[in-house]
Amino acid sequence: MASQSFGDPKVESFLDTVYNLIKDDALKKGTSRNEPVIEFKQPNELQALINFEIKSTPSDHQELLAEIKKILKYSIKSGHPHFHNMLYAGLDPYSQAGSWVTDAVNNNIHTYEVCPVFILMEKYIFQKLLAMVGFDTGDGLFCPGGSASNCLALHLARFKRCPQIKKEGQYNLPRLRCYISEDGHYSLKKAGSYLGFGENNIVPVKTDDIGRMCAQELEKKNTDVYFKKKQQHILFHFLKSFVPLFVMATSGSTVLGSFDPLPELREVCKRYKVWLHCDACLGAGTLLSKKYKYLLNGVENCNSLSWNFHKMSGVPMQCSVLLINDKELMQEANSCSADYLFQPDKHYDTTFDTGDKTVQCGRKVDVMKLWTMWKALGDDGMEARIDKAFDNSRYLLKKLNVTPGFRLVLPEFQCTNICFWYIPASLRGLTESPDWWKELHKVAPKLKARMVSAGTMMIGYQPLSSKGLVNFFRVVVHNPACDHSDMDFVISEMERLGRDL
Amino acid sequence: MASQSFGDPKVESFLDTVYNLIKDDALKKGTSRNEPVIEFKQPNELQALINFEIKSTPSDHQELLAEIKKILKYSIKSGHPHFHNMLYAGLDPYSQAGSWVTDAVNNNIHTYEVCPVFILMEKYIFQKLLAMVGFDTGDGLFCPGGSASNCLALHLARFKRCPQIKKEGQYNLPRLRCYISEDGHYSLKKAGSYLGFGENNIVPVKTDDIGRMCAQELEKKNTDVYFKKKQQHILFHFLKSFVPLFVMATSGSTVLGSFDPLPELREVCKRYKVWLHCDACLGAGTLLSKKYKYLLNGVENCNSLSWNFHKMSGVPMQCSVLLINDKELMQEANSCSADYLFQPDKHYDTTFDTGDKTVQCGRKVDVMKLWTMWKALGDDGMEARIDKAFDNSRYLLKKLNVTPGFRLVLPEFQCTNICFWYIPASLRGLTESPDWWKELHKVAPKLKARMVSAGTMMIGYQPLSSKGLVNFFRVVVHNPACDHSDMDFVISEMERLGRDL
Repeated sequence: MASQSFGDPKVESFLDTVYNLIKDDALKKGTSRNEPVIEFKQPNELQALINFEIKSTPSDHQELLAEIKKILKYSIKSGHPHFHNMLYAGLDPYSQAGSWVTDAVNNNIHTYEVCPVFILMEKYIFQKLLAMVGFDTGDGLFCPGGSASNCLALHLARFKRCPQIKKEGQYNLPRLRCYISEDGHYSLKKAGSYLGFGENNIVPVKTDDIGRMCAQELEKKNTDVYFKKKQQHILFHFLKSFVPLFVMATSGSTVLGSFDPLPELREVCKRYKVWLHCDACLGAGTLLSKKYKYLLNGVENCNSLSWNFHKMSGVPMQCSVLLINDKELMQEANSCSADYLFQPDKHYDTTFDTGDKTVQCGRKVDVMKLWTMWKALGDDGMEARIDKAFDNSRYLLKKLNVTPGFRLVLPEFQCTNICFWYIPASLRGLTESPDWWKELHKVAPKLKARMVSAGTMMIGYQPLSSKGLVNFFRVVVHNPACDHSDMDFVISEMERLGRDL
Repeated sequence: MASQSFGDPKVESFLDTVYNLIKDDALKKGTSRNEPVIEFKQPNELQALINFEIKSTPSDHQELLAEIKKILKYSIKSGHPHFHNMLYAGLDPYSQAGSWVTDAVNNNIHTYEVCPVFILMEKYIFQKLLAMVGFDTGDGLFCPGGSASNCLALHLARFKRCPQIKKEGQYNLPRLRCYISEDGHYSLKKAGSYLGFGENNIVPVKTDDIGRMCAQELEKKNTDVYFKKKQQHILFHFLKSFVPLFVMATSGSTVLGSFDPLPELREVCKRYKVWLHCDACLGAGTLLSKKYKYLLNGVENCNSLSWNFHKMSGVPMQCSVLLINDKELMQEANSCSADYLFQPDKHYDTTFDTGDKTVQCGRKVDVMKLWTMWKALGDDGMEARIDKAFDNSRYLLKKLNVTPGFRLVLPEFQCTNICFWYIPASLRGLTESPDWWKELHKVAPKLKARMVSAGTMMIGYQPLSSKGLVNFFRVVVHNPACDHSDMDFVISEMERLGRDL
């Protein structure tokens, strides 16, 4: 049996080597402009390059280290200043260190008994976040990703409206309906299917020309289906009825970065007694900034909010928080009082055993990496990251606006997402017929393939069916290692690679 | 703004210091018999000891390091050879290293585009696991914990039976019923409430005297409620009807470590066309051992299986896999084809974009820490860990059986869970009246409090309502750092601390 003892000098030397490899190859080279963002290989090529095979006998350290080196080499450098493909925000040393601590103590955050420090740390962070959002008496939970946070919010809203569902299930109920802007995140559709609502009961609501949900459109949907309270008792058992339950507002939509008008949506929700959830997985980062927090004006009147610190704030995956404006609801909705975990006769105050308020049992600690970073940077440092991301994005937007061959999808500045078409020389100055747009649709995938093969930059593209838009690029700039020269590089590198397309 | 650059010597020196702290305080001291398992503080004391507060200005490195040192000090040492409180299995250096790599590249495992290496690594691991389980054509997914794996299995079973639910939801359906042994895990109850079944439709089935589900009891439940196929069409729309959908067998129950008889349950499930899920979060580790894999005999005929590598195999939280015996179902049940992520016009074979088969969107990479450990140890090393755990447990069981003052809950050896009462001198040799048992019920919490306050050992206790048992201790031995002397210590230390109770 290979040694697994930390006291064994060979094991220690292995760990030291991995640590140094990580520092050199991932953290330093992986964030250096002199190094590639990606060394792309097709699946079959990559398969041949890395020896994934596990044998019956141990691999020696040298062999294992060689594979780890290759794994670092061929993994995407998501912290590179030329990686703008996803909603990441670089690599932060403090959150990396926080994550190492988490693994090294490997505490399961369900009871104070086995996880005292992080239970208190979560409590502190939730108090801080609730105060920032403006939820006076609320509760929080780290969830495994933003989709899970949104899904849990829907579950809580349903329980609040129909508490009998916990015992009896979603049978004999009228159709509970949920509303989301047509540009909102698909996680609500997945949650709808998962929780038993069905995708058809997740109703898309039209957005305005810059991608924000129209409150008037939402109102229309609600008026159509709403039954007045005095009738509810009967209608509640009438199978063909619909009851509006949940609106998911989007603060920072995935593609366009749009912010739904929370106060207007709140008015409609209040009138119809509908839960207003704010999917701010992307946009809640702006609450850290005095300059940009206005984008979430009215958030204090929502019922719940999702916030992914692995997006704008650069904490490593996963770091998503669900906050709700209700102190007891999570516990009421989810508690099961498992005998073997939540014993009432423990030697401390068992209200610190917070694990029964989740739908999970064991739960990974996600708070330490966030806390370490925030503590290191202070509120000011967390704010500076956000402001820098907005400054870079705004600079890019302005520059794209005046550079031939680039056309903005939305000329107005909203968030850190900058969406645009690259128009190669062969398509410039021509009549913009349906065929022209069809050709333009093919440009982004081709240019992306060249980018990836050059390894110099990564930018995502997508169509936007809600607005009938053909493939365009989306640059998301959250990485604090980026500066204006990296924005200039976006433009010059696309020109270099795409000119002859 | 505090520097976040990995090239900054101050940042590098901070990281080096954290790394050394982790090695010394968590990995070495935290696994040393000369050090405490826990330095217990009541919540208010601990609150005063660690400065959780985040200021507006940055914390300097010295201040932050001092807090990290305290965080390591007051966190539970879950890798300590005298920690038997939960289903952990020590700390493994290779999986720790794998986790560092994961964070340092911070890839989001939804598309090959941004996560090429780990997509292929998952594929390799799933093939290996499916072959071990005996699922000929199957699929796998890493889920955020065992509860999530069980919940997803239930969702897939429902979709398989009623595919219309994806669009239309769980309305107008007959009551879909799920069955689980009365000693099975509470995650199914939580899943029942979450997915819209309702807890009342999660039906507990009696267990035999060593905690295994009785197939005859299950059959009775099914016969009562089952409607023959030719009638199904009508009954399917009849609201008062029940349709048996899902049986969750338990392989390694949480408290007693019992294994349900899979072949017998399979017979019942086959007769009634019910999905058989095997919750082997704890027990699947035995599949790694030629000697103990018989405990899961018949698993190849289940429809799905959950396996937590953060339990018996010692991978840090979270590392749970759901395996299903169906190649397409996950994709069919969950796919949503989000435009911005799963573009069909990419520059590689997009069947490698596996993220659409989950209910999540972004997903943390959990495979690297498992793969690194498995590669380092080989199949033989993974097997040796399991065999050692069984050897230690069996030694403890035998010794408890002949030591005055200890009484086994189950004298038969089943798994690595050893359950027993400690009977202090004051209660020995007396008539075992209801009052005597009432007194014994109070012993475990008191002894546990002493243990924790001495800091020398951690063992969990619980009652078991299904069998009407008062509080007893459960020692779970998976840590490969444990040997027989640690088992002896369990007994001598309990005697030392509990004698005068």
